[in-house]
Amino acid sequence: MEIRRLDSTRDDFDTQLNELLAWDISADSEIEQVVRGVIADIQQRGDVALLEYTAQFDGVEVAAAAELEISQQALRDALERIGVDERRALQAAAERIRDYHEHQLQSSWSYQDDLGNQLGQRITPLERVGVYVPGGQASYPSSVLMTLVPARVAGVGELVVTVPTPGGVRNDMVLAALAIAGADRVFSIGGAQAVAALAYGTDTVPRVDKIVGPGGAYVAAAKRLVYGQVGIDLIAGPSEICVVADAHADPELLAWDLFSQAEHDAAAQSILISPQASVLEAVYTTMARLLPDLKRTAIVAESLARRGALIKVLDLAEAMTVVNRIAPEHLELNVADPDSWLDAVKHAGAIFCGPYTGETFGDYVAGPSHVLPTFGTARFASPLGVYDFQKRSSVIHMSAAGAASLADIAVPLATSEGLEAHARAAAIRVKQDN
Amino acid sequence: MEIRRLDSTRDDFDTQLNELLAWDISADSEIEQVVRGVIADIQQRGDVALLEYTAQFDGVEVAAAAELEISQQALRDALERIGVDERRALQAAAERIRDYHEHQLQSSWSYQDDLGNQLGQRITPLERVGVYVPGGQASYPSSVLMTLVPARVAGVGELVVTVPTPGGVRNDMVLAALAIAGADRVFSIGGAQAVAALAYGTDTVPRVDKIVGPGGAYVAAAKRLVYGQVGIDLIAGPSEICVVADAHADPELLAWDLFSQAEHDAAAQSILISPQASVLEAVYTTMARLLPDLKRTAIVAESLARRGALIKVLDLAEAMTVVNRIAPEHLELNVADPDSWLDAVKHAGAIFCGPYTGETFGDYVAGPSHVLPTFGTARFASPLGVYDFQKRSSVIHMSAAGAASLADIAVPLATSEGLEAHARAAAIRVKQDN
Repeated sequence: MEIRRLDSTRDDFDTQLNELLAWDISADSEIEQVVRGVIADIQQRGDVALLEYTAQFDGVEVAAAAELEISQQALRDALERIGVDERRALQAAAERIRDYHEHQLQSSWSYQDDLGNQLGQRITPLERVGVYVPGGQASYPSSVLMTLVPARVAGVGELVVTVPTPGGVRNDMVLAALAIAGADRVFSIGGAQAVAALAYGTDTVPRVDKIVGPGGAYVAAAKRLVYGQVGIDLIAGPSEICVVADAHADPELLAWDLFSQAEHDAAAQSILISPQASVLEAVYTTMARLLPDLKRTAIVAESLARRGALIKVLDLAEAMTVVNRIAPEHLELNVADPDSWLDAVKHAGAIFCGPYTGETFGDYVAGPSHVLPTFGTARFASPLGVYDFQKRSSVIHMSAAGAASLADIAVPLATSEGLEAHARAAAIRVKQDN
Repeated sequence: MEIRRLDSTRDDFDTQLNELLAWDISADSEIEQVVRGVIADIQQRGDVALLEYTAQFDGVEVAAAAELEISQQALRDALERIGVDERRALQAAAERIRDYHEHQLQSSWSYQDDLGNQLGQRITPLERVGVYVPGGQASYPSSVLMTLVPARVAGVGELVVTVPTPGGVRNDMVLAALAIAGADRVFSIGGAQAVAALAYGTDTVPRVDKIVGPGGAYVAAAKRLVYGQVGIDLIAGPSEICVVADAHADPELLAWDLFSQAEHDAAAQSILISPQASVLEAVYTTMARLLPDLKRTAIVAESLARRGALIKVLDLAEAMTVVNRIAPEHLELNVADPDSWLDAVKHAGAIFCGPYTGETFGDYVAGPSHVLPTFGTARFASPLGVYDFQKRSSVIHMSAAGAASLADIAVPLATSEGLEAHARAAAIRVKQDN
């Protein structure tokens, strides 16, 4: 089994760590040119172009765009068709995700200042949101719950979902999850054409205010290009897990956690950090033993070889320094008293504390959304949450006394900026009432 | 004086309203090509390229990049040099902006579910933020306060500011505002090269986690391209005001409010909506009378002719429908009992209620940031606020009982997704402890 080994005491540690974390997330010029054409085409020819692209890329040919819509009845039918264990699991997961996200709801507020001015902020749900659900091999019912449920908790008016169905194959688990989460409209379209249809609207697909959800390089490029026309969530890079373990950790448990990230795809990243060489060695040995018998041995082996690492550090304090350099999507603290290390963690999408908290629970059922900032974007970004589906408006209601008093501040500032009408608009509110 | 007149009872009202609001905010392909080159150049050649671009575009030639930094002493000197009225006004405005934004601070939270799992969210400030301050003609000290003060309230570790100084001319009011707001480092650079330097870092300019602040087309294109490498705030379109007035409103006051938006630049948009034809007529007459004697007559006249409008509606309820179509950056409700109309407003960046609340107070001193979603982006975006400078991490700490119980949900879902290691990572946490 091939995997990088890094040691913080080596002179080349910084260089090696930089190489480990290197990934080109920036916009690809060639893909953008193609996507720019698709977007312009959807804007100009609407449903006609949408039908052409869907036939071309998904092999789905229909006579009218209305046939691309998946009915509410079809969602309910899928929910009936799936196994009872799966149905119960989806429903239980949805309930836990809902419970967690209700803690994120924010309310409007206001206060009065000492001049009698009323100041506040109105917090309201978005009116219409588009959710991109990937199709084919990387189609996850859990992701449907993790995006739609927070939006529903926020009170979004209408949820419009696009999910490509390559070869016309619909995924029953995905449709069932859409039924449980409460999608309002679902269209079997994908790629840049789906993003363009959501951003600009066609006769069939309604225009939305924001587009969320993961996708491949073309979807990411399309989201980047329509940003401004609509809101978007993060542009995702490859997914990663970073496990910090001390001597207490169970090597087999760590091995499965590292595998569970690596099995996603060959670009996924699994990193184990420990002050104990014996822990790193035991995990290596365990992984090497288990690897040949996995269902996805080839993907896991490639992921570990290309992007995995076992990192030896001096102590847990240094482990946290390395963690903050990585700013991982998923961080497991498999150490004694994990909560005592939380303050040392500056950047992480989600933090899993203690031996029972496997990342896998976070992927399905713990409660927080598994849509998390990847590739170091936890430096500035947050998990997908209710706040992504609410927006704010400042509200100001000034008193006569407030206007008179604040004009003394606004007038000199406006004048210094050469903005006469601004100054006059402030001054006139004093003149007429004092 | 030239200005559009629309009437909601006319058959072509929808078409005319669409024409009024039309603006191409999408990415410009040619500008992006240039900016892509600048970014790559800064990435590869760092300070050397930064010096070349600064000489080329700003006419500022220095021997070493370190000379591009404006010292803390230079900021303090500027604060001493400006007039006492201006200094007091900047300080008073900063204090009010700070007061308002302290209401936006969010705190970490957590709760225990009935299985003994601890679930929560940590909310922490960003570590290092870059603020782009425009230079030259559109350089506003008020914008310095409106971006840096919320960041400081959030607790951002380090604020790195870039402000171009074309011809080497520094704006004392801008430097004084930077002193008051507490900028940590200030560099006299601008354009796409400043954005690239902040996003990737050079030997002189530190790499930041997020870039905020308005700029022209090249700055906007650069922000769009570095999104992902760093966080960004909104990409701004032209600024606009929408005033709803009934028979109680004072026409001269409305005229100055409309002028104050139009004087920004010829692309700014001023719209007045009223059910009273007499109000529209009185405002028109007043504007026509005042227009010739303004300091910026040409800009105001062009803005009103190109993008302004007087809109006659049937009643205030219909006025709110039109407002929601526009989703204005600034909305003035100059009507009797303005608060009673707030629930009808679905989309607006900031809402100014009643006759005393001129937008101009919001621009300088009321409290909320004047950095607001423009061009209809209030449909999904919020005013710049403390929340833009905080980020969240999900925190999960599961109990043995929690793992055993939730494995019953996670295992069937992971299995249905074909993710063996995910299922095993859940199951192993039951096996060893129950």
